[in-house]
Amino acid sequence: MRVSVFVGVSLDGFLARKNGSYDFLPRKGGDDNGYDEFIATVDAHVIGRKTFDVVRGFDEWPYGETPVIVLSRNPGRVKVPKGVHCELMGGSPKRVVARLAQRGAKHIYVDGGRTIQGFLNAGVVHRVIINRYPVLVGSGIPLFGPLRSDIRLEHVRTRAYRHGLVKSEYRVLPS
Amino acid sequence: MRVSVFVGVSLDGFLARKNGSYDFLPRKGGDDNGYDEFIATVDAHVIGRKTFDVVRGFDEWPYGETPVIVLSRNPGRVKVPKGVHCELMGGSPKRVVARLAQRGAKHIYVDGGRTIQGFLNAGVVHRVIINRYPVLVGSGIPLFGPLRSDIRLEHVRTRAYRHGLVKSEYRVLPS
Repeated sequence: MRVSVFVGVSLDGFLARKNGSYDFLPRKGGDDNGYDEFIATVDAHVIGRKTFDVVRGFDEWPYGETPVIVLSRNPGRVKVPKGVHCELMGGSPKRVVARLAQRGAKHIYVDGGRTIQGFLNAGVVHRVIINRYPVLVGSGIPLFGPLRSDIRLEHVRTRAYRHGLVKSEYRVLPS
Repeated sequence: MRVSVFVGVSLDGFLARKNGSYDFLPRKGGDDNGYDEFIATVDAHVIGRKTFDVVRGFDEWPYGETPVIVLSRNPGRVKVPKGVHCELMGGSPKRVVARLAQRGAKHIYVDGGRTIQGFLNAGVVHRVIINRYPVLVGSGIPLFGPLRSDIRLEHVRTRAYRHGLVKSEYRVLPS
């Protein structure tokens, strides 16, 4: 079972602006950077409540038929729009991963700043794939945050794409 | 006349820990990533007072015979150790660059978090070269900071080196 992060960020490490907008990323940024290939192997998305609030406003539900787990400390308070297939879950990153593994999940995709940071801090992320765009935005929702201790990674590969996108893949080393 | 930034950072964008230590970067990180070649073309270093406070504690003055400009709002307060060749200078990034250009400087190397951020915000940096090491440290002295507005860059090249170092070179686009 693998837990992966696959994100697009500004050169200064922001996933989005403070208001949730990511207008600084190219519209179809993912068309040739292996996202489709990556996502085809994912059998569970784990997102935070804030990311959920952003994506549920989209014209199209971005996760297709793949199960989506929305993390929340107050699952009762989260409103799920009609026709949206997702499940609310509480608990620590370790517990969430264990529950999904019990159900047979082989590849979990963790998304959203706070959620990614929580899962990294809990030591349950195996792979981090960062797509960096050549723009500095100065402030916003950061990909990374405070840590309990250093996390060492192994660089797997880096490739440059259109729009000046640089994609780097890392394996998280055991602490 | 060119103004360049050439830095080593953690994957989460820190130049150093809060106490100034950069023990998370490989000791001889610069031995094969083109630093020597780059530095050979530099004819003026511009550093902030905080970076100066760190480097003046080194056993060896790291800038050799190349002129070093130490920026300070209170130049009178900065103590320069014996045998250290540096000049104190106040004023805005634009003024500093203009003064050095008048003296014939062709390639200025700007270093230190605050100084880099000030020069980027002032729109006087032409080139940014970032050497990213595969470690997350969670907090420290950030390479980038708040901006008056987005800064767009053009990706020039990216290469992976030993220790999992990934070096990316960007050209700053005119705003």
